[in-house]
Formats: sequence, C-alpha cells, structure tokens
Amino acid sequence: MKTISVPFLVAAVATLAGLAASKPFAASGSAVDGSPIYGVTIPAGYRQWEVIAPSQEVGLDELRVILGNAVAMKAYRERTLPFPDGAMLAKVAWKRVPSLGDDAALGAPTAFVPGAATTVQIMVKDSKNYAATGGWGFGRFIASKPVDEAQHETCFPCHESRAKGHDMLFTQYAR
Amino acid sequence: MKTISVPFLVAAVATLAGLAASKPFAASGSAVDGSPIYGVTIPAGYRQWEVIAPSQEVGLDELRVILGNAVAMKAYRERTLPFPDGAMLAKVAWKRVPSLGDDAALGAPTAFVPGAATTVQIMVKDSKNYAATGGWGFGRFIASKPVDEAQHETCFPCHESRAKGHDMLFTQYAR
Repeated sequence: MKTISVPFLVAAVATLAGLAASKPFAASGSAVDGSPIYGVTIPAGYRQWEVIAPSQEVGLDELRVILGNAVAMKAYRERTLPFPDGAMLAKVAWKRVPSLGDDAALGAPTAFVPGAATTVQIMVKDSKNYAATGGWGFGRFIASKPVDEAQHETCFPCHESRAKGHDMLFTQYAR
Repeated sequence: MKTISVPFLVAAVATLAGLAASKPFAASGSAVDGSPIYGVTIPAGYRQWEVIAPSQEVGLDELRVILGNAVAMKAYRERTLPFPDGAMLAKVAWKRVPSLGDDAALGAPTAFVPGAATTVQIMVKDSKNYAATGGWGFGRFIASKPVDEAQHETCFPCHESRAKGHDMLFTQYAR
C-alpha cells in the first residue's frame, strides 16, 4: 500500500478548496452565502441601484422592483443586446398588502403597498463563468440566505424558454 | 391724465414677472412648466433616484415606484420626521398591464408590468416657501406638463387628512 505524505494531503485539500471557492463566481467579495450551482451572492449596495421597472407577481401576490447596476442600466438605456459582462440585476420582492391608511380613510383598498420582504433575486452576467447558462448566473435569497439547489435548477430553463429574445431578461425598462 | 414712462412700465412688468417667477418655488432651474399654485417643476435626474417603494393604485389601475433624492433617502433611513428642507420625492406611474410573455407562455397573466406612462408626481420640502401646506410643494405632470389648478388644489388636503402623522407622506420605506 502506498503512503501519502501529510504535506501532499494538505496541498491537495487546499487546491480543491480553492477550486470550490473560485469556480462558482461570487458577485461580491464573500462566497459564504453563494447560491447553489452558480455561487452568486447578494451584491453590496444593490438596494441603492436604479429602477428598471416595478412589477406585480400574481401567484405569489407580491410587489417587486427590478433594479440594475450601472453596467445594466447603460445597456438598458442604449438597448444593448446581449448585456455586457458585469451587468447585474436585483429583483426585490415583498408581499402585496393593502395600504392601511387608505383602508381606514375610504373603507376599501385604493392602493397596495409592500408588506413583508420575501425574496431577493440576483442575476450576474459573466459570459465565461456562466457560458452554459447563456452567460447569466442566478441567485435567489430569502432573508439573505440562498434557497436550495432544486429551486436554482429552475432559473435558467424558464428564462431561456420565455425571454431568450431579450438576452434571458424578462424585465423591460419602464420609460 | 397722468402719463407713465415706458422705462417705468418695463421696470414694473419686470418686477411683477420676477415675483411671479420667484414666489412659486421651482425645484429645478426652469419655472416654465411649474405646477399651478406651487410652481414645482420636474427635477433633473429624478428617474435615477433611489427607490422608496413600489405600489399599485387600484382605481387608476397603475403600477408605481416612489423615488427619493439623497436628502429624502437619508431621512427615510434615519426615520427623521419632519423631513428636512431639500427632500424631494417622485412618484412615477404607468398603466398596469399583463406581461405578454407570461400570457403567451402560460395562457394567463402571472405578472403585471408597466404599460404606458401616465403621471409623474413631485413633492418638494421647503418649509418657508410652502409654510401654508405643511412645508410641501406639489406638482403633478402628464407628459412633462403640469395638470390644472383644480387638480393641484386636491393634493394638500388629502395628504394632510390621511398622512399627517408621517409628515404628509403616504409612502413608507420598503425594507
């Protein structure tokens, strides 16, 4: 039986750990809470990004805003397709609840507003790291923690089948 | 009959014009398209401001985002009341329409998205200029033109009666 030296083992483990940390591309510095499959993290400062559009999700009864970083917004304004590497989008979702002030004053909801926060969903364009999924990496987070791998397996097929003509992005810029 | 010199007339007209231009406070450089009563204009770059919250308006069937300038966002984050002078908010509204991609793929709307742009509504805090209306000036615009005086007469009474406890602002920061 062959013996394996301890230094070799340490080096091998370090190499594997390095691969694991580098392969799933992290959108921000930390890979600790990276999404399954993609390793996408929640980018710092995303809540301050510019609005691409609001939306209402029927099935989940949510209000959402879809935000873009500077690279994404430049591409949206200039109608650049495909989106360049470095483009990032954040879809921020809340439960859709009646405006209580409106209810009290008028006896019926005149407006719906954000209730409890639900998910934050991130898309990151990196044509090399995510070549197998149209150049996009996906991350879906609840309370800043990524959801499981099964959920992440649904991202790309749905975006590909329904938004391929717009570089996999559902959201259009609200002008 | 007394005669009035042309230079005097010119000076008088200029003075009145100056009063008319300065009294209704203009949020940006131009007072050309200022709102009736308040003289509020559409601030440059408002579409790039940060998101306070999205909303859905039932009666008008609209999706909206409410944006704030840096002064407003600082006050929202620090829960400062009343809002300081210089705070500005923009409520940007679109018709609420089904996402066509969703319809085509699934046979029923799963999401609603922004359709045609409807109104842009601006609030400007200036406690001296707008002392009579809680420190806020209002402007409601369609296709960048202010709507009529009758519509602007409704702004303050409604905000005062229904949002007085939050310095006349309906919108809460979506966290």
